[in-house]
Amino acid sequence: MHVRNGFRRRGGTDSRRTASRPAGAPTPCDTTMNTMTKEELMKEAIALSVTNVARGGGPFGAVIAREGKIVATGANRVTADNDPTAHAEVNAIRAAAERLGTFDLSGCEIYTSCEPCPMCLGAIYWARLDKIYFANGKEDARTAGFDDSLIYDELALPRPQRRLPSEELMREEALEAFRLWAGKSDKTEY
Amino acid sequence: MHVRNGFRRRGGTDSRRTASRPAGAPTPCDTTMNTMTKEELMKEAIALSVTNVARGGGPFGAVIAREGKIVATGANRVTADNDPTAHAEVNAIRAAAERLGTFDLSGCEIYTSCEPCPMCLGAIYWARLDKIYFANGKEDARTAGFDDSLIYDELALPRPQRRLPSEELMREEALEAFRLWAGKSDKTEY
Repeated sequence: MHVRNGFRRRGGTDSRRTASRPAGAPTPCDTTMNTMTKEELMKEAIALSVTNVARGGGPFGAVIAREGKIVATGANRVTADNDPTAHAEVNAIRAAAERLGTFDLSGCEIYTSCEPCPMCLGAIYWARLDKIYFANGKEDARTAGFDDSLIYDELALPRPQRRLPSEELMREEALEAFRLWAGKSDKTEY
Repeated sequence: MHVRNGFRRRGGTDSRRTASRPAGAPTPCDTTMNTMTKEELMKEAIALSVTNVARGGGPFGAVIAREGKIVATGANRVTADNDPTAHAEVNAIRAAAERLGTFDLSGCEIYTSCEPCPMCLGAIYWARLDKIYFANGKEDARTAGFDDSLIYDELALPRPQRRLPSEELMREEALEAFRLWAGKSDKTEY
């Protein structure tokens, strides 16, 4: 789950190597592609949010870019795909990580048509993205009938005060996995 | 993205219908399956966290159950699958939603071997799970080299004070998607 070292980047990693990609797909550093401005990249995210409504999805789109070039895109497919985690940002992160062949998207930025919800913001931290550009704000989303504020409020509360109940159970037994992890010499840390 | 109506359940929904499932897979309400206690369900989550270490994943496992029967399971595959969102809870939620054919997992509970990070907690709220059972706590995770607290701290800060920079861009243009959404008569709200 878990952030290490306060977002310091590990030195000497080769995890940024690109994986194989579909024939014809532009490489992230394809010199034949023009570098896009931040406004052009956001325009793409907004276009995704607009076209996604007609495609049966929610009004949200996202683009992940590196050095002004699009790495991957995503749109909200929660109801279309029956996946509560399929927000535009999560989908874009998953697609970008698959395309680059790494769970570490540092060096990339995300352009999202709406300010991220807590789940997506958490995903953005885990993916180590460098910066968030957003267009619609939380208040715009609320006006449109979407409201992330309850989740933000809940996360800010101490656990026992949240309205979603939670209960600790069998902690001693569960520590076994962490003991195994500590003793594993060939693990990939993150 | 977004929570509606403060987690009130919509009446009259038929979204809980189960989708087709693989031949031989137990149905969530299969009367031939014994109802499991919460300790038995947590034992499954812990077993997943333990076996996942040997399988090249992180030391985290999760089970989603309804009325004492397992609906789906998940384990942390972040580094194994190059997916920064592939935490045990997210994977279990995605699998449960696919299996039940709905983005609304109300009536289900999650058993996770470790207290959820903000991304997973957000996903749990979006999935409308009824309750969280967790074994290892955040402090245990930190001791094991994982630390979600930075993300919790960041989410609690006002946006401009977070260490991850963000910038508003082209809000007016982005409102178009919300206008289209407002005018769409056949949309699925969530």
